[in-house]
Amino acid sequence: MSNYTHETVPTQFVEVNGIRYAYRRFGKPGTIPLLFLEYFNSNMDGWDPDVTNSLAADHEVILFDNAGVGASGGKTPHTVAEMTKHSVAFCRALGLKQIHVVGFSLGGMIGQQLALEHPQLVGRLILLGTGPRGGEGMTFTELSPEEQADPMAFLLAAFFSPSEASQAAGREYMKRLESRKNDRDLPVSRDSAVAQLAAIREWGTIPATGRYATLKSITHPTLIVHGNQDIVVTPINAFILAEHLPNAQLIMYPDSSHGAQYQHRKAFLEHVKIFLSEGDSGVPDQDSIKSSVAWAG
Amino acid sequence: MSNYTHETVPTQFVEVNGIRYAYRRFGKPGTIPLLFLEYFNSNMDGWDPDVTNSLAADHEVILFDNAGVGASGGKTPHTVAEMTKHSVAFCRALGLKQIHVVGFSLGGMIGQQLALEHPQLVGRLILLGTGPRGGEGMTFTELSPEEQADPMAFLLAAFFSPSEASQAAGREYMKRLESRKNDRDLPVSRDSAVAQLAAIREWGTIPATGRYATLKSITHPTLIVHGNQDIVVTPINAFILAEHLPNAQLIMYPDSSHGAQYQHRKAFLEHVKIFLSEGDSGVPDQDSIKSSVAWAG
Repeated sequence: MSNYTHETVPTQFVEVNGIRYAYRRFGKPGTIPLLFLEYFNSNMDGWDPDVTNSLAADHEVILFDNAGVGASGGKTPHTVAEMTKHSVAFCRALGLKQIHVVGFSLGGMIGQQLALEHPQLVGRLILLGTGPRGGEGMTFTELSPEEQADPMAFLLAAFFSPSEASQAAGREYMKRLESRKNDRDLPVSRDSAVAQLAAIREWGTIPATGRYATLKSITHPTLIVHGNQDIVVTPINAFILAEHLPNAQLIMYPDSSHGAQYQHRKAFLEHVKIFLSEGDSGVPDQDSIKSSVAWAG
Repeated sequence: MSNYTHETVPTQFVEVNGIRYAYRRFGKPGTIPLLFLEYFNSNMDGWDPDVTNSLAADHEVILFDNAGVGASGGKTPHTVAEMTKHSVAFCRALGLKQIHVVGFSLGGMIGQQLALEHPQLVGRLILLGTGPRGGEGMTFTELSPEEQADPMAFLLAAFFSPSEASQAAGREYMKRLESRKNDRDLPVSRDSAVAQLAAIREWGTIPATGRYATLKSITHPTLIVHGNQDIVVTPINAFILAEHLPNAQLIMYPDSSHGAQYQHRKAFLEHVKIFLSEGDSGVPDQDSIKSSVAWAG
């Protein structure tokens, strides 16, 4: 298994409750796997091969299409909570006792819900370009005809800042996405994308009471990564996560939008390495969690 | 020179315009020096020896008392702008062509002003627990009789969060501050502290127009480090810096207050190492700076 790369690892399938989930698994065996949870309208081919291959040197990497997405069967649900259930079913089907989550945008919302509902299943959380339940400005609009017409131009505009340096990084990122030639994933259907949008909007709805109240219960060591000019999930959401999560480190990169981790991937990979190798001594004990919660309140 | 440590390096003096500045210089010769700019009411003994000694392995380290502070002569001015002039005079007296700034709190304010007014003198900026001119809640009150009575208890409460883990880290930090036994610095006088408070308040005054407008002109690669529970300089100030500075990376540590970099010093030292070793390719060119400024506006 360890000889496979992002480019060569075959797509596999596992069936649970009549749903056939597509996944790809490679990297260093015998480690706690990194479970990659995808962003809106993306499939397993949407991850940067430089990032997955680099992380695979030290960790097992599992890319995974949630229900109804890409090559996976089933129907994409309309809530993050339901997507989380599918993620858990998938982990159980693979017999995974513990995972670290790498969740990007929508995937980071699922990651938070997973950590909240199944704290033992999750070791550490890496939250990329995402926001808390009921965050700021997280009520996304419908897919526009423009972005449907030219998804590459849309990606360059959404994932990278208007600067020349960022746009150049964006073009390189999109080139890297093509490095896997065979056994590509299936595109995300319009129905699946529409359901995902509904789920994101539901997640982004500001609750009448207790806004951000659940965050104090996610005590996992967490790395939050965001672009300081993110136009998809506004950067204040990353700050709110860092304020309210009891054990989260925030890293915000300059001159970058929703694809900050790809634009600054050299620094990002070093930062992830430090984060994943930190001893658990950094984890607050129960007393200190209580104190810091009172503090944050 | 390179055989000295934080503990053993002798205090030296250099005189400019009739003012005798106290400093300590050690670390790796032939590198761009890291100039450490002190926080309110502190002197050269206030830096964590673990941090200065670790950074001295790869960089020259210069600790420095601004005018009127500790062992330095002259009178402490009432504005950050005047403190910046003293810092420049000191650098010129030592014949320094370029420095990287490590500015903590008040020192980070001086660092920003230095980068703004003398862009060629500054290579990179490391801003610890500080905020922008006219930031949020940066109008500090007078020194209370309590903090004068028990400065150690005051430091534990201001630099560390109430959690057990943070308080334990605080006690270790304060033990390390005692590792230099001989040739200690002089205490900061009440007059000097009062002048510093006035300078911080002036810096923190919200301008009638153009709030944060000067930040776009500080194009230096910048590392912002902050505690997510900082009660001295509220964390939103670090976020504002990261939003408006064209080339700044923000790192925010969990369960930590004004002394976040000491509490999390292992991660901090690794993060600084990555930041200082990044190639200048990460520096936006003039076009991209203009774009990102328009963007931020």
